[in-house]
Amino acid sequence: MESFIMQLIAVANKPGMISFATGLPDKRLFDVKGIEKAAIEVMEGEDAGDALQYGVTEGFPSLRKKIADRCKRTMNIDTKVDNVFITNGSQECFDNLGKMFLDRGDKMIVENPCYLGALQSYSVYAPKYIGVDLNNDGPNLDQLTVALKEKPKLFYGIPNYQNPSGMCYSEESRKQIAEMLSDSETLMIEDDAYGELGYDGRAGKAIRSMSDNVVLTGSYSKIISPGMRIGWMVIPDWMIEQTKVSLEAGCLHAGSFSQRIMDRFLEKNDLDVYLKPIRAEYKRKRDLFLDLMEDHLPDTMSWNDPTGGIFVWLLTPKGTDAMHLYDAALKKKLVLMPGRPFHIRNGENTIRLNFATACDEDMKKGMEILSKVCKDVF
Amino acid sequence: MESFIMQLIAVANKPGMISFATGLPDKRLFDVKGIEKAAIEVMEGEDAGDALQYGVTEGFPSLRKKIADRCKRTMNIDTKVDNVFITNGSQECFDNLGKMFLDRGDKMIVENPCYLGALQSYSVYAPKYIGVDLNNDGPNLDQLTVALKEKPKLFYGIPNYQNPSGMCYSEESRKQIAEMLSDSETLMIEDDAYGELGYDGRAGKAIRSMSDNVVLTGSYSKIISPGMRIGWMVIPDWMIEQTKVSLEAGCLHAGSFSQRIMDRFLEKNDLDVYLKPIRAEYKRKRDLFLDLMEDHLPDTMSWNDPTGGIFVWLLTPKGTDAMHLYDAALKKKLVLMPGRPFHIRNGENTIRLNFATACDEDMKKGMEILSKVCKDVF
Repeated sequence: MESFIMQLIAVANKPGMISFATGLPDKRLFDVKGIEKAAIEVMEGEDAGDALQYGVTEGFPSLRKKIADRCKRTMNIDTKVDNVFITNGSQECFDNLGKMFLDRGDKMIVENPCYLGALQSYSVYAPKYIGVDLNNDGPNLDQLTVALKEKPKLFYGIPNYQNPSGMCYSEESRKQIAEMLSDSETLMIEDDAYGELGYDGRAGKAIRSMSDNVVLTGSYSKIISPGMRIGWMVIPDWMIEQTKVSLEAGCLHAGSFSQRIMDRFLEKNDLDVYLKPIRAEYKRKRDLFLDLMEDHLPDTMSWNDPTGGIFVWLLTPKGTDAMHLYDAALKKKLVLMPGRPFHIRNGENTIRLNFATACDEDMKKGMEILSKVCKDVF
Repeated sequence: MESFIMQLIAVANKPGMISFATGLPDKRLFDVKGIEKAAIEVMEGEDAGDALQYGVTEGFPSLRKKIADRCKRTMNIDTKVDNVFITNGSQECFDNLGKMFLDRGDKMIVENPCYLGALQSYSVYAPKYIGVDLNNDGPNLDQLTVALKEKPKLFYGIPNYQNPSGMCYSEESRKQIAEMLSDSETLMIEDDAYGELGYDGRAGKAIRSMSDNVVLTGSYSKIISPGMRIGWMVIPDWMIEQTKVSLEAGCLHAGSFSQRIMDRFLEKNDLDVYLKPIRAEYKRKRDLFLDLMEDHLPDTMSWNDPTGGIFVWLLTPKGTDAMHLYDAALKKKLVLMPGRPFHIRNGENTIRLNFATACDEDMKKGMEILSKVCKDVF
């Protein structure tokens, strides 16, 4: 079976297509000039040869330090540089953690709905998933309590502007989860891929700052460049040696070239200053997108109002199957991502909408198509 | 247990250390200016945003085509672009192939000695290794015949300038192996990481050109830059869909940024012209290194005369354990890689020597230390 996500990316890349489907950030926001400048400086620098040479598995020390410093400063996470590992995007973290912790049939908690790419990583190791429904304020805590009693090895969640739903855990939910984790034998993988994209600052505290039973994963993919493939994880002390061996077995290390250019870019750009216009632009796009939804979509549909990230979660009428929209929309050159594949159970009447990829004009055209298709199909 | 290779790289990177130990190519040969120029052109080009954006799992089409074309032209391998996948270095190929084919206890043939990094990749999937001794003209074919009868899933080998031994399969050996594979249910992983580094051209035909039961893996790491992390594999048709899913689960795709810069670099540089001085320089270094060995090492030691690549294989006297040299040499600031860890069995009296990393002066100093240590220890 070919992967649905990559099939979507392939379709969405075709000329003339409008895409609300993928997880791609807005490429108009990439600082091409800034990355070019950083690349030139690295290649003109004394260490240019080292940027092209093999590096160490843990990652480029200066970049690891920047990540540790930012985790401390913005998330109050008490981490040493030794606990930070650089990876080929967060995806490699998920694969690696699955490889390290999951044997066939081991239990693992995931949000329902859950980020599909991560599910694909973990599924290679054939765990038995326990889905915990995601409410507006975070995972259903009653379900989570029951699930943790089954002593699952891992719990994977995205507390900030979740992919696919755009939802956030409440402050209270984070606190309770941290307490539950500290009393459990379960390791949480706290995926913070979108945490930096809160339009008015972070949605809430990192669970990692309140419990040691957590691996925090992050990435430059959504804020600077996915094509440079730089993700990272902050891991507990007891995992350090095992992680080094596991990442090395996987692909030796993330690229020295990309890492050094990213490090240089971050030397020259205060991340908070850099992020300001990006957050503002995604906020503007969200506003425009929600206005268009309000104007075009039938009253029988509903959606949320994300406070960060790049996704809106659309509910089609109860009992309908949003998968039917996919083909109909595709015929009109709009690519949609139905919500069902993100789910362990249910979710037939959901759609993930990415408002970051399309330009304003395509957003409008796309919403008109979506509106028409909804009226035709339902 | 911390990985021995990465420990070596960490030690070898310390100032004042001379290293014969790692698998690092000579960074003085990296075309820093050329890569910089390619990077600038990509970032000044129309598609700069796409170079920073997510790409497709299979890899950047234009680069895949270059690889397919070269495989056809220089190796007589009849491959379509569809069969070429780009990876984060060859290492990701090994991990991925292990993940796809090996279940705990499955049998797998490896050369004895075998490249350690690949062993580390496969070992995650806990196969039962069958070691086939490597002779001067390739794997012991009697052992290989017996091994193939056990219906192993995979056979991993490096026919050209092997890591660790620098040895090559003879033309006759390749032909026989291709025939044996075609009659078997075993898939060979033919690692060609060093094939482009034959001082007087390729050592022999690719086994892939004579049998379909082969995945050919290659890399730009030894000839252009390991830090850009670009490897590739040519796979049979029946593996295409499964490989796409598996690589996507692992880390989505290799970096668009590095791939496009590499592609640009290859647009501007005829690889054969580019490789000429690199092959010549490694040949010069081999000559110097062998002369130094001849001058300094005791008569009780012997070594081979590699016709490509970056390694010489040193045999210490029978019954000795080369591991003892490691600590003694380290005290004198020479890092060595004993051959034992590359072996499934035996190999105590072997050492892998990399003559690429060190500059001429360090080669001389290092050989004096090695000579002294050998005399002290044995």
